[in-house]
Amino acid sequence: MKPHYPYLEKIDSPDDLKKLQVSELQAVCDEIRAFLIDALSKNPGHFGASLGVVELTVAIHYVFDTPYDKLVWDVGHQAYAHKILTGRRDRFETNRKLGGLCGFPKMDESPYDSFGVGHSSTSISAALGMAVVSGIKQDHRQVVAVIGDGSLTGGMAFEALNNGGHIPSNLLVILNDNDMAIDKNTGAIRDYLLSITTSRAYNRMKEEVWWITARWLSVRKIFQKIRQATKTYFLKQSNLFESFGFRYFGPIDGHDIEQLVSVLRKLKKIDGPKLLHVSTIKGRGYKPAEIDQTRFHAPGKFDAQTGQGLKPVVAAPGPRYQDVFGQTLLELAKQNPAIMGVTPAMPSGCSMNIMMKEMPNRCFDVGIAEQHAVTFSAGLAVAGMIPFCNIYSSFMQRAYDSIIHDVALQKLQVVFCLDRGGLVGEDGATHHGVFDLAYMRSVPNMIVAAPMDEVELRNMMYTAQKENHGPFSIRYPRGNGVNPDWKEAFESMEIGKSRYLRKGEKVAVISIGDAGLQTAAAVQQLADLGKNCTHIDARFLKPLDEDMLHEVCAHHDHIVTIENGTVIGGLGSATAEFMSQNNYSCKLKVLGVPDQFVEHGTIKELQQICGIDQESIEKTLESIWM
Amino acid sequence: MKPHYPYLEKIDSPDDLKKLQVSELQAVCDEIRAFLIDALSKNPGHFGASLGVVELTVAIHYVFDTPYDKLVWDVGHQAYAHKILTGRRDRFETNRKLGGLCGFPKMDESPYDSFGVGHSSTSISAALGMAVVSGIKQDHRQVVAVIGDGSLTGGMAFEALNNGGHIPSNLLVILNDNDMAIDKNTGAIRDYLLSITTSRAYNRMKEEVWWITARWLSVRKIFQKIRQATKTYFLKQSNLFESFGFRYFGPIDGHDIEQLVSVLRKLKKIDGPKLLHVSTIKGRGYKPAEIDQTRFHAPGKFDAQTGQGLKPVVAAPGPRYQDVFGQTLLELAKQNPAIMGVTPAMPSGCSMNIMMKEMPNRCFDVGIAEQHAVTFSAGLAVAGMIPFCNIYSSFMQRAYDSIIHDVALQKLQVVFCLDRGGLVGEDGATHHGVFDLAYMRSVPNMIVAAPMDEVELRNMMYTAQKENHGPFSIRYPRGNGVNPDWKEAFESMEIGKSRYLRKGEKVAVISIGDAGLQTAAAVQQLADLGKNCTHIDARFLKPLDEDMLHEVCAHHDHIVTIENGTVIGGLGSATAEFMSQNNYSCKLKVLGVPDQFVEHGTIKELQQICGIDQESIEKTLESIWM
Repeated sequence: MKPHYPYLEKIDSPDDLKKLQVSELQAVCDEIRAFLIDALSKNPGHFGASLGVVELTVAIHYVFDTPYDKLVWDVGHQAYAHKILTGRRDRFETNRKLGGLCGFPKMDESPYDSFGVGHSSTSISAALGMAVVSGIKQDHRQVVAVIGDGSLTGGMAFEALNNGGHIPSNLLVILNDNDMAIDKNTGAIRDYLLSITTSRAYNRMKEEVWWITARWLSVRKIFQKIRQATKTYFLKQSNLFESFGFRYFGPIDGHDIEQLVSVLRKLKKIDGPKLLHVSTIKGRGYKPAEIDQTRFHAPGKFDAQTGQGLKPVVAAPGPRYQDVFGQTLLELAKQNPAIMGVTPAMPSGCSMNIMMKEMPNRCFDVGIAEQHAVTFSAGLAVAGMIPFCNIYSSFMQRAYDSIIHDVALQKLQVVFCLDRGGLVGEDGATHHGVFDLAYMRSVPNMIVAAPMDEVELRNMMYTAQKENHGPFSIRYPRGNGVNPDWKEAFESMEIGKSRYLRKGEKVAVISIGDAGLQTAAAVQQLADLGKNCTHIDARFLKPLDEDMLHEVCAHHDHIVTIENGTVIGGLGSATAEFMSQNNYSCKLKVLGVPDQFVEHGTIKELQQICGIDQESIEKTLESIWM
Repeated sequence: MKPHYPYLEKIDSPDDLKKLQVSELQAVCDEIRAFLIDALSKNPGHFGASLGVVELTVAIHYVFDTPYDKLVWDVGHQAYAHKILTGRRDRFETNRKLGGLCGFPKMDESPYDSFGVGHSSTSISAALGMAVVSGIKQDHRQVVAVIGDGSLTGGMAFEALNNGGHIPSNLLVILNDNDMAIDKNTGAIRDYLLSITTSRAYNRMKEEVWWITARWLSVRKIFQKIRQATKTYFLKQSNLFESFGFRYFGPIDGHDIEQLVSVLRKLKKIDGPKLLHVSTIKGRGYKPAEIDQTRFHAPGKFDAQTGQGLKPVVAAPGPRYQDVFGQTLLELAKQNPAIMGVTPAMPSGCSMNIMMKEMPNRCFDVGIAEQHAVTFSAGLAVAGMIPFCNIYSSFMQRAYDSIIHDVALQKLQVVFCLDRGGLVGEDGATHHGVFDLAYMRSVPNMIVAAPMDEVELRNMMYTAQKENHGPFSIRYPRGNGVNPDWKEAFESMEIGKSRYLRKGEKVAVISIGDAGLQTAAAVQQLADLGKNCTHIDARFLKPLDEDMLHEVCAHHDHIVTIENGTVIGGLGSATAEFMSQNNYSCKLKVLGVPDQFVEHGTIKELQQICGIDQESIEKTLESIWM
């Protein structure tokens, strides 16, 4: 029997929501929760974050005039209730599927999605831009950014607070404080927010003063005078956000819908940059998610009754790459006391929690702070340590300058482990790690490696710490490998040396990283038909194995490169440069992710779209062979 | 007569400094100032920042056991006194010259340079890394980071504070508050620091409490109890840095050497992360520099007696590129009300101050905050504006993710103007803008343009705002152009179309950007010898002019590409990709900045080293022709 949602079924836009009484809103929230639990238990997605902001979402759309008023969600994985309330309930079953709804707000998808998001800490900057324009146009548009306490640890959020607190604008920042990133939030700000939320007296006092001054706000000049007069008072009471020039309100209970509506209505009338601190519980309303918040960040399919995870129908043949990283790191750290682990808020996402558990003093979760993670690693390296700094490929983009300026320029031995390299599937365009091979290759002194399988990942990690090769980057994909017996004894790899997987004729296929797996299968299929291509696993994009390339170019008519990354700047480009500069006239075909943003879908579907799944590779090779 | 420095001449290392009485230190400071004024008036460099921290530098080296204790300067242009005190006085006349001292701290140069710097806001991260290792090794090493209030607006500094305030370590952050970046510092934090420094009562109170508790510090447990007991007190008194978990001391007068020594001695005994707020005056001790702080940030040669700037012996033929940008921006903004200006703390550096002066409400100096600058621009664009976001090429590396994730993915019309593209000369390895062509080319939807001269810069800016082409990046070099009559009427450019500068035979030279100038001269020289090469000004790296490339490859034996940027990933790579994939067998030679970090020197010297000055290009072309 299909569940029934009497309220939701009548809400196709925030206008419908506004027809309800405040007293009815909790019932709407309850239905949204039930809807989300049902939908996400069957069609996996981000779970806990959206459950935590149901009341907040309803209150915002109830009070503000979206989409005229602009609402910017930070990261956006908490925006499911927002999607459901803004005309996308019926399509929600397509969430994160090819051609379906995006798992994050996306401007193309709905006018209610004011800004496309996915990465952390962008919301205040973008919202400030909109608020500033609203001020210039004097169109009385309200602009609201909702940012989590985890996202607040990203430096860009502070850059925006510093700028925004200085500009008169209609900006409202709502701090959604649930004390979590994917893992427990960490850092001084977390302690600080905890201290605020547990100090009730302090808050009551502040609140009263604010509401008193707020009443006079329609007369702006009077307010300014009051503000001046109360300056001493505020200075003494000054909190973090007031230091940044934001008027601070809260903390209030983010699950009390009536209070939320009341407070937002008041805030709507207050000019100038302001911050509302809202306390929420990640996973609110679904006990298993409230208890295990990290697992329920994105739990996969689960039994809605029990919260038990449901195993995929087909078991993966090998371990998750992230676990190969995590277990190998611990293994190496036991052997080498100089090894340290650094992660920007991803201990469970990258499986550094394995080492963290056994060696808490040698691992650092530095918060959602990629730049700092890299430069902090540089500091560790200067002091004689060998940091393994693990950052998802698409997030590493944030640390590009730190990589160049703080690590590579000084030839420091920092091992960059780029998880989620290549197409990541359902998270879509914001999360594909398709630029890393290109952006790392341009960096002098950098070794750029990508393992084809679990064993190579282990051995690359081993090699990177065995001797000091300077900066060493290793990128590997999301998901599982293929080798159940991956825990082989460590073997040192020769830097910049590829390996032959098969020696054939006519066509030489050079793959790098995990793309080698589907390539090997395709090459095997062709061999079965008597078309025996050469297949090389490049292993290193930089330094490039020029000996191999000379050999291959001299003995083949066609070269095909295959990579799980953009066709601009990676292996294909490096091979083209080599061939052009060495006057080889064999023909080159470059396979990879085309020069466009790739949407969401399963990895397999996206590989097909890009022509780098096994079947596409087979077809390409066959067409070349003929 | 050579000036005489009785104290300095006896100081070849901080050990020599430590032999002096505290009462003698001001005399040392005075000598350092005289030395710096003399040296920098003749051999230009960063001026005001170093003058402002003379007392601080002397005090730090007097109190701390450098280089065992680690001292990390943020940015590092204020580290001249540091260099003079650490054995580099005699070589200081080579500052910023080829083969001479680097204008910034550099690990290779001296053990006293604990970390190489150049870009802003890295010091706390790096120092924290070192402090953490010191904690693990229990080697009682002190780690000091000196960061300016301008650098503090960079998000990475906050990421580091958030992380550092949470970790017990021997980290001392000294906030060198002079209320300036290159221009006046801006943002809420600036207002906040001003409010602190003008509230004396508040400070005295804090100071007393801290010193009282500090006295008991040798007995750590007692201290902790005291801390607990005074927690309520501190919560009420909480300031920004205490919110970040740092114990806050100050503000104190950064020009009172005796107080500095006394305070640093006390702080040395206090465990845990702590911040000392020091008020200084940029340019202190040299009146012209105190009065015009922006000009004296890096004033060029000047008359030490009067402060008057000395003009270069040979006048440049054309205007500064930055002024072409600045004046053109204002011109366009007058025609197009949607245009806005965004700069991260570089209004005078990029000449956006020209527009700022006339249209203050349409320009935003967002602080040293490149990521925010780009995402804020994205917000402006979403709201219908056309932001021109001007960031030096090497600093734009910091905004790489914002470019991809917030602008390009959403095809927003943000015009990126990358000043200081290519080799920048004396600022050296940290500041060369040599990666931008490569890292921009990998980004889908991005137009990548580089003008050969002032007129092209104007017309590219005109084209970028005339129609919505999505993200549009324009990079141009440091220094002056060649065309005194550059203010021609605007002309629209066809996106992705190059232009022939000369049609010849055998060898086709394709240049992009300002490298076209020395290329044209070289090609002309050869033509005079009867060797008539084709020369094309590519104008656009992306989209690439494939029609031109087909034509050129079909009719020439050799293709030479020339760019003022890395040879990995830019024009050379794009041409190689095109040739390999289209089966052209002409030979390709790629000229540009080799795959290594290039040190400091004059632009001309560095071009020679890289083989992209006129003479080197001539030789290369000649050798190919034969």
